[in-house]
Amino acid sequence: MSEVTRPTLSDALTERMLELIRTGGHRPGDRLPSTRELSQRFAVTTPTLREALRRLEATGAIEMRHGSGIYVGAAIERLVLPNPNMREIRAAQLLELLDARIVIEPPLAAMAAGRAAEEELTALKQALDTAGRHLRGEDAELHDANMSFHRATARMAGNVVLHEVVDALLTVHGPEQREILQLFDDRRRDHEEHLAILAAIEARDAAQAEERMRAHLVDVKTVIEQRVQSPR
Amino acid sequence: MSEVTRPTLSDALTERMLELIRTGGHRPGDRLPSTRELSQRFAVTTPTLREALRRLEATGAIEMRHGSGIYVGAAIERLVLPNPNMREIRAAQLLELLDARIVIEPPLAAMAAGRAAEEELTALKQALDTAGRHLRGEDAELHDANMSFHRATARMAGNVVLHEVVDALLTVHGPEQREILQLFDDRRRDHEEHLAILAAIEARDAAQAEERMRAHLVDVKTVIEQRVQSPR
Repeated sequence: MSEVTRPTLSDALTERMLELIRTGGHRPGDRLPSTRELSQRFAVTTPTLREALRRLEATGAIEMRHGSGIYVGAAIERLVLPNPNMREIRAAQLLELLDARIVIEPPLAAMAAGRAAEEELTALKQALDTAGRHLRGEDAELHDANMSFHRATARMAGNVVLHEVVDALLTVHGPEQREILQLFDDRRRDHEEHLAILAAIEARDAAQAEERMRAHLVDVKTVIEQRVQSPR
Repeated sequence: MSEVTRPTLSDALTERMLELIRTGGHRPGDRLPSTRELSQRFAVTTPTLREALRRLEATGAIEMRHGSGIYVGAAIERLVLPNPNMREIRAAQLLELLDARIVIEPPLAAMAAGRAAEEELTALKQALDTAGRHLRGEDAELHDANMSFHRATARMAGNVVLHEVVDALLTVHGPEQREILQLFDDRRRDHEEHLAILAAIEARDAAQAEERMRAHLVDVKTVIEQRVQSPR
């Protein structure tokens, strides 16, 4: 028997599951048939079915909730995904990631200035106020608030694909960004730069929003470069 | 028994596999222990192990080659992945994808003009010559040559993360782009625009490379918009 069995069957099952979701008109959050029903429908054993389900789970196409069932995942319609297997990021990669954000995020801030809805701006202002109250608080909370700012700006730009790209970059970025935030000076400056970017978006000043986002990310990169060169 | 069993075990196994790859210093292409050895090492049954392997396979962290074994996958170090479950793209999504490329690719063409190596330029010129000889040939070949041009330009920009982003966008883009190419007029124009972009990169004219890439992608988007509005 060959070492790796049934590759074709697993591929075929994955396709049939995707077809079932598509032709059934299922949307993210919708409940799918049970593993028992699915293995009967596809005439395969449970272990074989489960291999296909794990593939789909790993890429966010389905969610398997313990004791509850199988649901269509939020990521099924995404074009771009963060790599879920990224565990540690090398310093050089982190700087490249920042350079990538410096290319992508400033034009999104400009787009946001052109089309952000008032409700979105109000929500973002509230999120920043919350972040402002956590400047001395837990790293994790402040980090989440900061990443929310960048995700929200990308969302306000109104392009789903670019929002996915930024979301993917921020997701892999997580733990290292958190470490950086441990320097309080940078927390305060980070926060003030976020407020300044929001002010430019609110003023519908695309050029200024773009320039402030670029300057902000260059600042973040400078801090990271210093940390990489002289870690504590 | 709950419907979905062993979620924690599958998560834990995935982590242990990633740890094995990392601590073993394994690189993409390296061969990993057999399923038999792995299930012994982790003290789990083969079906349970295989669930974890399929998760890792789905996200490109490993490759399972039928009759050969398990290898470290090329995508394990990527930050951003194309969604492997994308089967059909809606027209609105396709236009958003083009808008995303219009934001990301022009600055990459400018960066390429600043730093592309001579060998890279020579290779790209050869790839374009090949494409030029296939203007009346098979769709698939010409499509591959065209996508190679955009991937190569992104690579020459010298930022791995941005190259991954463009690669991810072009990967999901595939089938629809191919359909567009069936209009011969666009094939010819597409090709000429690629040559003009390359000429600007070769001349180390960053502003012109950026502007030509932008104009080219806007042209592509215009063609797609027309097709979306009046499909054959």
